[in-house]
Amino acid sequence: MSASEARPSALEAPGLRRLDELGLSPWDLLVLGATVLVAVAMPLRIVFEMSIGWLTVASALVSLVFAVDIVRRLSRPQVTGGAVLADRPAARDRYLRSWLTIDLLAAVPFDLLAYLTTSGSGAVVLRGLALLRVLRVLRILGLQREWRVRSSFNPAVLRLSFFAFWIALVSHWIACGWMALGGPELAHPELSPYQHSLYWTITTLTTVGYGDIVPEGSGPVAYTMVVMALGAAMYGYIIGNVASLLANIDVMRSRHLSRMEAINNFMRDRQVPRHLQAQVRDYYNYLWESRTGQQSEMLEDLPPPLRTEIALHLNRNVLRKVPLFAEASETFLRELVLQFEAVIAIPGEAIVRRGEIGHRIYFINKGTVEVLSRDESEVVATLDDGDFFGEVALLTSQPRSNTVRAVDYCNLYALNRGHFDRVLEDFPDFAEKVRQVAESRRSGPRGG
Amino acid sequence: MSASEARPSALEAPGLRRLDELGLSPWDLLVLGATVLVAVAMPLRIVFEMSIGWLTVASALVSLVFAVDIVRRLSRPQVTGGAVLADRPAARDRYLRSWLTIDLLAAVPFDLLAYLTTSGSGAVVLRGLALLRVLRVLRILGLQREWRVRSSFNPAVLRLSFFAFWIALVSHWIACGWMALGGPELAHPELSPYQHSLYWTITTLTTVGYGDIVPEGSGPVAYTMVVMALGAAMYGYIIGNVASLLANIDVMRSRHLSRMEAINNFMRDRQVPRHLQAQVRDYYNYLWESRTGQQSEMLEDLPPPLRTEIALHLNRNVLRKVPLFAEASETFLRELVLQFEAVIAIPGEAIVRRGEIGHRIYFINKGTVEVLSRDESEVVATLDDGDFFGEVALLTSQPRSNTVRAVDYCNLYALNRGHFDRVLEDFPDFAEKVRQVAESRRSGPRGG
Amino acid sequence: MSASEARPSALEAPGLRRLDELGLSPWDLLVLGATVLVAVAMPLRIVFEMSIGWLTVASALVSLVFAVDIVRRLSRPQVTGGAVLADRPAARDRYLRSWLTIDLLAAVPFDLLAYLTTSGSGAVVLRGLALLRVLRVLRILGLQREWRVRSSFNPAVLRLSFFAFWIALVSHWIACGWMALGGPELAHPELSPYQHSLYWTITTLTTVGYGDIVPEGSGPVAYTMVVMALGAAMYGYIIGNVASLLANIDVMRSRHLSRMEAINNFMRDRQVPRHLQAQVRDYYNYLWESRTGQQSEMLEDLPPPLRTEIALHLNRNVLRKVPLFAEASETFLRELVLQFEAVIAIPGEAIVRRGEIGHRIYFINKGTVEVLSRDESEVVATLDDGDFFGEVALLTSQPRSNTVRAVDYCNLYALNRGHFDRVLEDFPDFAEKVRQVAESRRSGPRGG
Amino acid sequence: MSASEARPSALEAPGLRRLDELGLSPWDLLVLGATVLVAVAMPLRIVFEMSIGWLTVASALVSLVFAVDIVRRLSRPQVTGGAVLADRPAARDRYLRSWLTIDLLAAVPFDLLAYLTTSGSGAVVLRGLALLRVLRVLRILGLQREWRVRSSFNPAVLRLSFFAFWIALVSHWIACGWMALGGPELAHPELSPYQHSLYWTITTLTTVGYGDIVPEGSGPVAYTMVVMALGAAMYGYIIGNVASLLANIDVMRSRHLSRMEAINNFMRDRQVPRHLQAQVRDYYNYLWESRTGQQSEMLEDLPPPLRTEIALHLNRNVLRKVPLFAEASETFLRELVLQFEAVIAIPGEAIVRRGEIGHRIYFINKGTVEVLSRDESEVVATLDDGDFFGEVALLTSQPRSNTVRAVDYCNLYALNRGHFDRVLEDFPDFAEKVRQVAESRRSGPRGG
Repeated sequence: MSASEARPSALEAPGLRRLDELGLSPWDLLVLGATVLVAVAMPLRIVFEMSIGWLTVASALVSLVFAVDIVRRLSRPQVTGGAVLADRPAARDRYLRSWLTIDLLAAVPFDLLAYLTTSGSGAVVLRGLALLRVLRVLRILGLQREWRVRSSFNPAVLRLSFFAFWIALVSHWIACGWMALGGPELAHPELSPYQHSLYWTITTLTTVGYGDIVPEGSGPVAYTMVVMALGAAMYGYIIGNVASLLANIDVMRSRHLSRMEAINNFMRDRQVPRHLQAQVRDYYNYLWESRTGQQSEMLEDLPPPLRTEIALHLNRNVLRKVPLFAEASETFLRELVLQFEAVIAIPGEAIVRRGEIGHRIYFINKGTVEVLSRDESEVVATLDDGDFFGEVALLTSQPRSNTVRAVDYCNLYALNRGHFDRVLEDFPDFAEKVRQVAESRRSGPRGG
Repeated sequence: MSASEARPSALEAPGLRRLDELGLSPWDLLVLGATVLVAVAMPLRIVFEMSIGWLTVASALVSLVFAVDIVRRLSRPQVTGGAVLADRPAARDRYLRSWLTIDLLAAVPFDLLAYLTTSGSGAVVLRGLALLRVLRVLRILGLQREWRVRSSFNPAVLRLSFFAFWIALVSHWIACGWMALGGPELAHPELSPYQHSLYWTITTLTTVGYGDIVPEGSGPVAYTMVVMALGAAMYGYIIGNVASLLANIDVMRSRHLSRMEAINNFMRDRQVPRHLQAQVRDYYNYLWESRTGQQSEMLEDLPPPLRTEIALHLNRNVLRKVPLFAEASETFLRELVLQFEAVIAIPGEAIVRRGEIGHRIYFINKGTVEVLSRDESEVVATLDDGDFFGEVALLTSQPRSNTVRAVDYCNLYALNRGHFDRVLEDFPDFAEKVRQVAESRRSGPRGG
Repeated sequence: MSASEARPSALEAPGLRRLDELGLSPWDLLVLGATVLVAVAMPLRIVFEMSIGWLTVASALVSLVFAVDIVRRLSRPQVTGGAVLADRPAARDRYLRSWLTIDLLAAVPFDLLAYLTTSGSGAVVLRGLALLRVLRVLRILGLQREWRVRSSFNPAVLRLSFFAFWIALVSHWIACGWMALGGPELAHPELSPYQHSLYWTITTLTTVGYGDIVPEGSGPVAYTMVVMALGAAMYGYIIGNVASLLANIDVMRSRHLSRMEAINNFMRDRQVPRHLQAQVRDYYNYLWESRTGQQSEMLEDLPPPLRTEIALHLNRNVLRKVPLFAEASETFLRELVLQFEAVIAIPGEAIVRRGEIGHRIYFINKGTVEVLSRDESEVVATLDDGDFFGEVALLTSQPRSNTVRAVDYCNLYALNRGHFDRVLEDFPDFAEKVRQVAESRRSGPRGG
Repeated sequence: MSASEARPSALEAPGLRRLDELGLSPWDLLVLGATVLVAVAMPLRIVFEMSIGWLTVASALVSLVFAVDIVRRLSRPQVTGGAVLADRPAARDRYLRSWLTIDLLAAVPFDLLAYLTTSGSGAVVLRGLALLRVLRVLRILGLQREWRVRSSFNPAVLRLSFFAFWIALVSHWIACGWMALGGPELAHPELSPYQHSLYWTITTLTTVGYGDIVPEGSGPVAYTMVVMALGAAMYGYIIGNVASLLANIDVMRSRHLSRMEAINNFMRDRQVPRHLQAQVRDYYNYLWESRTGQQSEMLEDLPPPLRTEIALHLNRNVLRKVPLFAEASETFLRELVLQFEAVIAIPGEAIVRRGEIGHRIYFINKGTVEVLSRDESEVVATLDDGDFFGEVALLTSQPRSNTVRAVDYCNLYALNRGHFDRVLEDFPDFAEKVRQVAESRRSGPRGG
């Protein structure tokens, strides 16, 4: 379990830990910011032929950052996507073959060169090349995929955020293109050219199409047709995704809700009496709120060591509550925790019936049960959180001596005879304690 | 089973019972109404700077209602979401940490104060604060979630209604915002400003975009872009949901219909003769109309006591019809009902064949069967609703002595040998009656 | 099987049979036509105040038809939805409680009365009532549901057609309403009012919204808002349905295609060699084209008599081809057909291997196999359509004596030892024939 | 396996092989090009009444190509869709009944005849007939279906491409129709008629509807209504498909991602400690990257010979690495490969525990394991890629003598005792080698 011990020690502040989870060092963050800046500013810079101001400085700094990043990557190749599989030389090779060209293009300050050059046509070419710097934004696609599988952020929220980011960026680019084409400026003279273009872009992409700004001349008309087709495709993609995205924001809750809906429909259809309907709904809501029932499904695919760790975590409540387990060894708990089966009892349910052959011992995680006398006429004992019952029948192999009934909703953990016997055998200290309790109970007025 | 007995006695009128199901007391209804009123009226009040009239009185009353509600919640904390888990102090704590701020903001009549204040800038601030009162409408989200799991209303209808409510409310808010920005009033001078704004809002949100009203100036243009983006997202959400909603209005029926479609397609594809196709369709329609087959799926997840109650309800018809069960004890029926297996026989089907080893006894819920003579040449008896057959072979362990054939569609309940034997053992009175009938039949010309 | 025999004799012409399947007599067709006519014509008649012409005659005739229909339904109540369950008095009761009011309203010629009355306000009321006649079109909803489960038409095509019908009808109604409101007529003076209205309706419902026709005055504006909201909802519904509809037009084919896509993706991903990929694709395509594999899934839910009938139909090809079965009795084939298991062998596959213990006999439906000599060096026999092999090992309980290899794709039917033995026992004639063939083969150079 | 051997030898160049996969000869490509040309050019030719230029020559050449194609198809009928089932005469029959008419119509140069004829009305009729030549484009639908099941192209990309093709073609046709109707030319005088029409078409189909070009006169208005309805339906279809298409571009990856999302949600919900979450994510990512776990699902449906071939391919890595298998016979490997079970061990996991009864032998495909001394205090051996362990317990039937622990993520292949024993029995050479290794290990300080 060396990996698990090494990791949390490295970074302690929660903010840094989050960054670590995303696989981002502060340097990565800087590069990311520079990439977004280039993607946003470069098209504006080309369109407006902006030669002065802070943008020039920023462009130079960004080039520097990108250049340093290339050097870093070549000297210390990042191992992304499955740290366990990749090795460094292979990663460098992959980098040389894939992203290097794009990174190099992004690192050259073509836009600065364009303002320094004296030849007119050279400036045009350089400005065209400056647009290539924008390509580096594609690296965010890789980041997006990485974060979806590596981070613990809510994945639906993550996808929605990236979605919004890309749509905003594409809208911005389309607006810049419209400006570059010199779209008509007549409709709203009070707006700045960029506002005007962005307004037109959004109007067209969302298919609202007021018609107050329409293209003129074959260039803008062709551009408009492409934007409209793109808008339709984008719309299709949005619509196909938004619903599934929203549904995924809380998968478990929506699964619970649609199950409730099916059950409600069924019961209304069959005219189940109203108070029975309420009981059934209560039961399923209790099940949902106590979060029982999903864990076995999640655990079954994991390899044994991880399964034990997760199960220990998930059942830590009951382990803490039951006094029997208080001094138990780590090994013992690890052994035990995988055998636990969660059981819900509803109020009034007879969990154990007198006369039955007993196959299980129960530990009470939450709730109250009452042990009935042999003729079931009175309550001889009441047990609650942390107690256990049903051990007598398992130890003596005799039928259950008393009925045990749930008083309210009970959250129990059951252990089967086979597992119980194995645990007793492997851990004689524990067996001794259980036998003491059972002995005292048998001599008293009740058993299990 | 105390919960089930206590509940229906509390409220008897069906209307009240429905409210009870929604967890709404009359007071809750009043608060709900006040919340909606504030959400609708407050933006209008701010935009139109309405200082007089009934709205002032209403605003004061609403503040009073909200103030009383806060006091009530603190003194008698409502336990929402799983009455069984929560306890009152925890509920009060949760309330203090979560909704209290919003409730307090909504209870202060900022709008009244705004008209009383003399300072101009103070009025502006107070009017801004008055908008915060609207936030209380978010409580309806909690209500919506609560109703989905607690009420027996058709959940799809419930969702559609809430959906329409939210869209209408958001449209109203957007229209108010457009008015506040002083959008252009030129296009339709015959309309009131509110009509004008709402018309523009709907035109934009539905992406129709006539273009008769377009924004002017950078403020309205920016607002329009946001509304268009919101409209696109909302549209995506609507489209993604409407179909699934409509499909859920009657889940079982649509499942039946799509199953029929698959079967129809298969039979057409394989060119099954037309009269056979009709028979298969008839069978599935009968199955659907007699509502057999869904219950086992619904029952299996329930805890034993609830399962018994529901099964008793679902099979109450056959229990009422079969004379054998008329005087049976409650305990007996509870035992029996979980063992029943529903069986459909089509016209002409041999349910029991002479010479076979018999494993089941059948009770006729609906339909007619005929018992054939040993050479299958004539009908020696006809049985219908409430009769049973097949008991001889089970009692004597001999092969079936007569073939029994369905005359029309028959809805039967079958009991397996194992269950039948256990029932006979546990309930000697019942066993005696069955034996009498069997004896009289064996001495007569037919058996089972 | 009385139902199956009675039905096809009733109607012989294919057209009539189709109508019969839809549950439509010629009279029903007439009533259906009249209903659609009223739904289309009545709004036009109210809006245009059309008092003369053929519409008056039609309206009178329609009233007559509807009146006669009510009398018919009361005297001979139609049993819709599961002929097997319903009985006539119950059906009449249901009719009295449900559709009677709407049918009565539709039968009164309010529109004729409106033109006969002299009082102005009376005419307005009567014209309003005339609109109620349109409600009868709701009966088509019932028809639609009925057809989906009863008819053998392609259900997706059926749904698409009804869909188109309803959208067209609603568009027509909206256009009529727009005319009634006296929407602006300025934009396209060359169009007739109805054309103008319909054009506006479609422009708005499809959310295209050119803006050449916009509402004026609060009435039309309110109407427009409702139509836009309706358009958005309808659009959502269309979009949610169209894809699933189109996918359902040929369910089996689309399931095959998406399976192929998954397999293709997997193989490309794992770089399976190209010729192996082609072989796998060939295999699945053969499986699809020979339509093996779906039938067991479809058969398993059916009651035994129907299952036998359908299986007899589906396997009629092999039964016809195998000479052994040519003179077999009906009873024998019914027994056999449910035990058949379809098997596909690919070219070169060894269906039976020398030395194995044999558990199955194979009948060749389509394809060629070759029987190899004991040392597998040469082909001693070739079998094709209608032949069988593998019987020797089953009869003698010795290991397979020869390997049998598929030459091309083979479509085989296999019978397990257990089923084979039972068949031999029950049908001694058949057993004798099989034994003769086996004997002649064992004495010859090959076996099975 | 004759088919697999014959195929790859036929065509060696990768480009040709790809064409071969699509079932396209160079001639087919020519015909395909001619078909698209006709579909695009013919409507333009009719609308513009273009009588001269290269189009006339092209039209004549296309007619020639189509005529030759008909002759070819009649003399050498193509067997499409399941080469294995169809036979040539049946294919020719099918061709005569289905496509022949359309092919003949497309082969007649009606457009040339129209310019040669002197009669005005004759020219109109001939121009109408020329449009029928376009119908031949429907053949591409068949091609599309064929490619989906036959080719190894990414099916989602294929569908998207065809989708784009059809939408572009339909838009082109709609624009031609609009020109033919003489739609208004006022709005954008600077555009060519075709540009103008196409711009209007896209504006309408995407439901943007600027309103700068609106129809005038009843003909164009009716046309517009049809186009709008078509646009709505097409939009519905696009939206319903785009999402599923995009999801299908990499099915396996998206399945992995949504599984990761469910696991992330679960762990966040249960507040699993951050380092445990990271370990679980690492595990699933490793599983995904090593592509274990999908193959068994894909293999199970295949017939035995194909299953063996595919399994040999998928496991070729481990077979190459393990020295034991280096000289093994082809037959041996075929036998072995179907029994392999892929196992992933995470760092620190005890794959084999001292004292357990051993049931499996493990081959290391990738990764490092360490064999611990009997008291688990020190590492006595380290094994990596190509090594195997666990054989001692299988050979001697004694409990495992040493614990074996994974050092990093390990990709192992396990063989069960049953399979192992059978392999040893069938292949004595291999058994001997294994025993030698085991012997040397037992005498050394470690075992398995």
